Amino acid sequence: MLIHLSSWPEIDAALKTTKTVVVPIGSNEQHGPTGLLGTDWLCPEIISHAAEKQDASLVVAPTFNIGMAQHHLAFAGTISLRPSTFMAAITDWVSSLSRHGFERIYFLNGHGGNVATIEATFAEIYAEWSFVEEQPPYVLKLRNWWDLPGVNSLCNRIFPTGHGMHATPSEIAVTQAAYPDRIKIADYSPQIAPVGPIRDALDYRARFPDGRIGSDPAQASPEKGQQIIDASVAALLKDVADFSNEVLPGA
Amino acid sequence: MLIHLSSWPEIDAALKTTKTVVVPIGSNEQHGPTGLLGTDWLCPEIISHAAEKQDASLVVAPTFNIGMAQHHLAFAGTISLRPSTFMAAITDWVSSLSRHGFERIYFLNGHGGNVATIEATFAEIYAEWSFVEEQPPYVLKLRNWWDLPGVNSLCNRIFPTGHGMHATPSEIAVTQAAYPDRIKIADYSPQIAPVGPIRDALDYRARFPDGRIGSDPAQASPEKGQQIIDASVAALLKDVADFSNEVLPGA
Amino acid sequence: MLIHLSSWPEIDAALKTTKTVVVPIGSNEQHGPTGLLGTDWLCPEIISHAAEKQDASLVVAPTFNIGMAQHHLAFAGTISLRPSTFMAAITDWVSSLSRHGFERIYFLNGHGGNVATIEATFAEIYAEWSFVEEQPPYVLKLRNWWDLPGVNSLCNRIFPTGHGMHATPSEIAVTQAAYPDRIKIADYSPQIAPVGPIRDALDYRARFPDGRIGSDPAQASPEKGQQIIDASVAALLKDVADFSNEVLPGA
Amino acid sequence: MLIHLSSWPEIDAALKTTKTVVVPIGSNEQHGPTGLLGTDWLCPEIISHAAEKQDASLVVAPTFNIGMAQHHLAFAGTISLRPSTFMAAITDWVSSLSRHGFERIYFLNGHGGNVATIEATFAEIYAEWSFVEEQPPYVLKLRNWWDLPGVNSLCNRIFPTGHGMHATPSEIAVTQAAYPDRIKIADYSPQIAPVGPIRDALDYRARFPDGRIGSDPAQASPEKGQQIIDASVAALLKDVADFSNEVLPGA
Amino acid sequence: MLIHLSSWPEIDAALKTTKTVVVPIGSNEQHGPTGLLGTDWLCPEIISHAAEKQDASLVVAPTFNIGMAQHHLAFAGTISLRPSTFMAAITDWVSSLSRHGFERIYFLNGHGGNVATIEATFAEIYAEWSFVEEQPPYVLKLRNWWDLPGVNSLCNRIFPTGHGMHATPSEIAVTQAAYPDRIKIADYSPQIAPVGPIRDALDYRARFPDGRIGSDPAQASPEKGQQIIDASVAALLKDVADFSNEVLPGA
Amino acid sequence: MLIHLSSWPEIDAALKTTKTVVVPIGSNEQHGPTGLLGTDWLCPEIISHAAEKQDASLVVAPTFNIGMAQHHLAFAGTISLRPSTFMAAITDWVSSLSRHGFERIYFLNGHGGNVATIEATFAEIYAEWSFVEEQPPYVLKLRNWWDLPGVNSLCNRIFPTGHGMHATPSEIAVTQAAYPDRIKIADYSPQIAPVGPIRDALDYRARFPDGRIGSDPAQASPEKGQQIIDASVAALLKDVADFSNEVLPGA
Repeated sequence: MLIHLSSWPEIDAALKTTKTVVVPIGSNEQHGPTGLLGTDWLCPEIISHAAEKQDASLVVAPTFNIGMAQHHLAFAGTISLRPSTFMAAITDWVSSLSRHGFERIYFLNGHGGNVATIEATFAEIYAEWSFVEEQPPYVLKLRNWWDLPGVNSLCNRIFPTGHGMHATPSEIAVTQAAYPDRIKIADYSPQIAPVGPIRDALDYRARFPDGRIGSDPAQASPEKGQQIIDASVAALLKDVADFSNEVLPGA
Repeated sequence: MLIHLSSWPEIDAALKTTKTVVVPIGSNEQHGPTGLLGTDWLCPEIISHAAEKQDASLVVAPTFNIGMAQHHLAFAGTISLRPSTFMAAITDWVSSLSRHGFERIYFLNGHGGNVATIEATFAEIYAEWSFVEEQPPYVLKLRNWWDLPGVNSLCNRIFPTGHGMHATPSEIAVTQAAYPDRIKIADYSPQIAPVGPIRDALDYRARFPDGRIGSDPAQASPEKGQQIIDASVAALLKDVADFSNEVLPGA
Repeated sequence: MLIHLSSWPEIDAALKTTKTVVVPIGSNEQHGPTGLLGTDWLCPEIISHAAEKQDASLVVAPTFNIGMAQHHLAFAGTISLRPSTFMAAITDWVSSLSRHGFERIYFLNGHGGNVATIEATFAEIYAEWSFVEEQPPYVLKLRNWWDLPGVNSLCNRIFPTGHGMHATPSEIAVTQAAYPDRIKIADYSPQIAPVGPIRDALDYRARFPDGRIGSDPAQASPEKGQQIIDASVAALLKDVADFSNEVLPGA
Repeated sequence: MLIHLSSWPEIDAALKTTKTVVVPIGSNEQHGPTGLLGTDWLCPEIISHAAEKQDASLVVAPTFNIGMAQHHLAFAGTISLRPSTFMAAITDWVSSLSRHGFERIYFLNGHGGNVATIEATFAEIYAEWSFVEEQPPYVLKLRNWWDLPGVNSLCNRIFPTGHGMHATPSEIAVTQAAYPDRIKIADYSPQIAPVGPIRDALDYRARFPDGRIGSDPAQASPEKGQQIIDASVAALLKDVADFSNEVLPGA
Repeated sequence: MLIHLSSWPEIDAALKTTKTVVVPIGSNEQHGPTGLLGTDWLCPEIISHAAEKQDASLVVAPTFNIGMAQHHLAFAGTISLRPSTFMAAITDWVSSLSRHGFERIYFLNGHGGNVATIEATFAEIYAEWSFVEEQPPYVLKLRNWWDLPGVNSLCNRIFPTGHGMHATPSEIAVTQAAYPDRIKIADYSPQIAPVGPIRDALDYRARFPDGRIGSDPAQASPEKGQQIIDASVAALLKDVADFSNEVLPGA
Repeated sequence: MLIHLSSWPEIDAALKTTKTVVVPIGSNEQHGPTGLLGTDWLCPEIISHAAEKQDASLVVAPTFNIGMAQHHLAFAGTISLRPSTFMAAITDWVSSLSRHGFERIYFLNGHGGNVATIEATFAEIYAEWSFVEEQPPYVLKLRNWWDLPGVNSLCNRIFPTGHGMHATPSEIAVTQAAYPDRIKIADYSPQIAPVGPIRDALDYRARFPDGRIGSDPAQASPEKGQQIIDASVAALLKDVADFSNEVLPGA
């Protein structure tokens, strides 16, 4: 059940049988010379929508498409929230979803650069309850799609070299499978991009001139992408089910 | 050119010929017993994407899909930002887009409840420059899609009665044209919903039990929706061109 | 009953018979070559104080005299709050007045530029209740004094041309009636000021060199101002009474 | 020159001969059984307006009428800003006045409870410059009207006992001189109110049941008020002149 | 009982017999050519730790070592919070300590520049309760160590001239007693530093070239420091006991 | 060189030869039945101070002793900042240290729960520069002391079982070496604490009744602590030197 393509009575009905909602969350940022700017929000959207197709009882929120990408701002098309803004927005999403009775809120994340801020936000949200000795009416979970059980190892099997950390062939492949008419080609030089620390935008551009970190996206293909999607969908459905069924202490 | 399906070099190239970007912006909120929760962000997305199909030089940002919908929070599936969060997020979008050289930022809005906060945000953004006697490097424009020249009068011709203010047959029809497999049916009682002031969520639900205000969405059809989309696309392309060509004082 | 000229026991007593308070709210900003900088807060103050003279049971708060006027900052004497500051301040006024038992808070506004931010503030305030499924203990209302029933049409009858949008002869006339010793004279060139969009302060000054928008304030006179005040007072008393008597859903 | 009763060209002209502006600042809060709720903003307004009458070159801003009065909130009619809101608002006033060329901004304060927050605000404002090794384009000064040279000693001479700290006969007398038709009478019990620490609103009301601290306002009279006003006006004009003429280090 | 050298069960046990906690709070900022940068947080730490040695039932929190020192930022080693940050941090300390059952929170302060912001913070904290007509579960107290009964007069007796306001021989002496191996020597020119107003960092450095205000720290000695510490310890234990035993109205 | 025990001229002199500063940062929070509440800020303080003893040219800031510990708030003595407060405070520390010329700011962290918020803060700080296409005048680095090269493997060799994640024998041992008179003893039941997810404070206390996660602190001893300190000191000096000597792109 995709929330944005449902009516409110349909969501009301769904809440009778599930208290879990999946929020695809990512970033809109450069992904090297050939990657789509939307890669990091498209991947969790692609995977969660495919999962919902398999199991219509999975409730999927609209995609949270802009995250924390300050280091990519020297490349055109990147849109970033400051961490403080990102925190405020996630907080309001949680307040809204909780208001309707969702008690387990699962963020399927597509951008490594979001992790610290999302975790800080969870702490900010929990702190409101911790200070006043009350139990929050929800449990929050963050899962990067590549950390879904089995997915990372699959990606490494498919791309034993040149996987890297940004504009990876895995994520490029996933978007190629979903948007085959948007596949772009470029000569990569070097074939495998350099690695290094991530700091501000100018430093980033100086270190990683075409935007990639450690990756060779030329290895991507729609077929490989579909393979990754399929594995991710199965793992997601299992992971969400486990999260939904987790028994809380004191319950 | 859809930013999220482009690479950064493609956006870089586009910036050589245009400095204007269109941001579809809306809300995810209840739209009565049959309207899609995503209606208000889907409509500007549908219209701007259709416009980009006609004129590939139109640069369209990802859709800003969550807005100010606090009054709808008593209906499941609604997700709202507080105005202060919304303001921070819009500000970061503007900072990001401006960073790349976009000088005219056009928000195509799909939710009346967003208008006050978006305008307050423009003032907040401009104030930073006004206090220090500097000219901002961009001009901001807000346009509701139904206020595109000719669109409102068309909607009123198609739906002379029961158009109303929320869950209108116009917006329902637009989503029906784009998502014909998601058309939902219900008995409306009363056929035309009541009207009244908009305040907090509980007050809203008490006044407008099924979520509609003043509307009879049963009149919507995919054909009427396509007619509205076609008119909106033409008007949007013209309106964006005028905005791009507007000469600023002192220029 | 003017709060600031009353003692707390007097307000305590008043709260036994009314739960409504009127807050005159405006802005301190340039009003063309002859208009008073205080025009936009003086007008609602003049009208609400005159109304209180007619009906001493009307509770009037001190005047909220600084609003959102960033676009006027290129003209000396303008004082503006950023929208975010304005929102915080209005919120605290509401919290204070509500604390004493006022349940209907009526803002009589004198500045068009305040409208978006005041409405966004109402949403910010309501959101706190909407997120937690509680009914706020107050209802908020915004009314521009020129939108009081009958006032706009009167102004248009008195000033059929050159009324404009800023430094209008109506508002100038109202202040002339109240401060006849502060009437200022200037040659206007052009007689009717230009119109255009409102953006940042430098853009504004370039478009509207003497500060007016679309108006010819030379038409103002104290007599016309008194006529407008009289009409506004009557309309205000009626409007506030209606607001006080409005039955809420569920009540 | 009262800013709010002037036009922008008049302020522009004034800025040719002075760079100093006086901001009357106070609070709207209970002042015992007989004191006006507006006392703390009326006193600096009365004194600064009287000073401007004597010396028309004195530039006086509109009155900042709501301050930090959280401890008085258990008494009807009190309106308080949270300190954080108060800080934001003062900051915007300073930014606005500085924008026009005012380089010495003098706050004439009427409420002891404002002092800590105003001083914290000055530090917040200066910090922006101190962090980046720049000199702010203005100097800020806070002066309580009763701390104007000679005023406190005069008040103590007039009221050798029962002056107290809140709802003092001095401030009551000043408002009586200016608003003789608003003089209120009550039996005070005890004649001189108790003293004690100031904390939250409920604690305050429990300690000081009628709102006064240490004072016997029955001693106030319009004549004594006028005497205090006269002394304050002379001292203010001298104090502002000294401030305007103060030579800064490095200048 | 020093919290940071205790385990949580030990604090739990202590809370059975006391509800009071002492928070040493200061600033890390220049203290002239010879004073330690830590002087202002070391002094309250030294005194409160010495007090805890005498009376192990005194509960002392970790030292809040960074305060409001924007005016000292032109001298290397100074670290300052903006007042707004300082307020947020103190608020969180109070929320944390209150969460465990501490009902009387006593801030032993070592920096005059902290006073306004700490008091504004108390008001900010209390305001949350005052707005909603609830009694906070704690009482907050600020005490500068030199304002402990008898301490100031002792310091003035020891240093009848050249005590001054910043980098005073008193505070230097206290740190000399505690850190005798860190005593530094310099020629002071002039022997007694100048006095003047405190504004931003560049203004401060221009007025007070070596950082001192009005003081002659050459008079300090470890013996004098010990004398001051001894007096302060006795006064602190008495002052905290009085605070703990204070009966609240309504209790 | 410990900043807090130095004078400003000493820091000024140090800045001639180094631009790097080490900030020990941690948390004050429960560490099981025997661990000191200060453990997480004492460990980086102990290690960095020991390193400074070996190499006096190492500049060490005062210890940032309160971090993000909301999940520990159900245990007495824990003091936590909300992430948003923590971010503001770190930002001000960076602004202050940068103001003096420090260009490499190295946070030696002692609390895993701080990591996400510190990283989010770095992004918040960098974003200010990234949005405006400027290079920040500093590089920020976060290093957990146990992640110093070689330290983790040493800890695992010393404590092959029962190391765990919170109240680990490693950190307990480090504090035992530094505070041998504060060693506490308890019976642990179970000997090795359970593991599980970290959420809000009540959930934490229910899962981990005595506060530990996965650890057996009974294995700690002062000797083992000294061994860990020695290894950490050597690794820290090397790590800081590498950071200081790192060549930036474009330099």
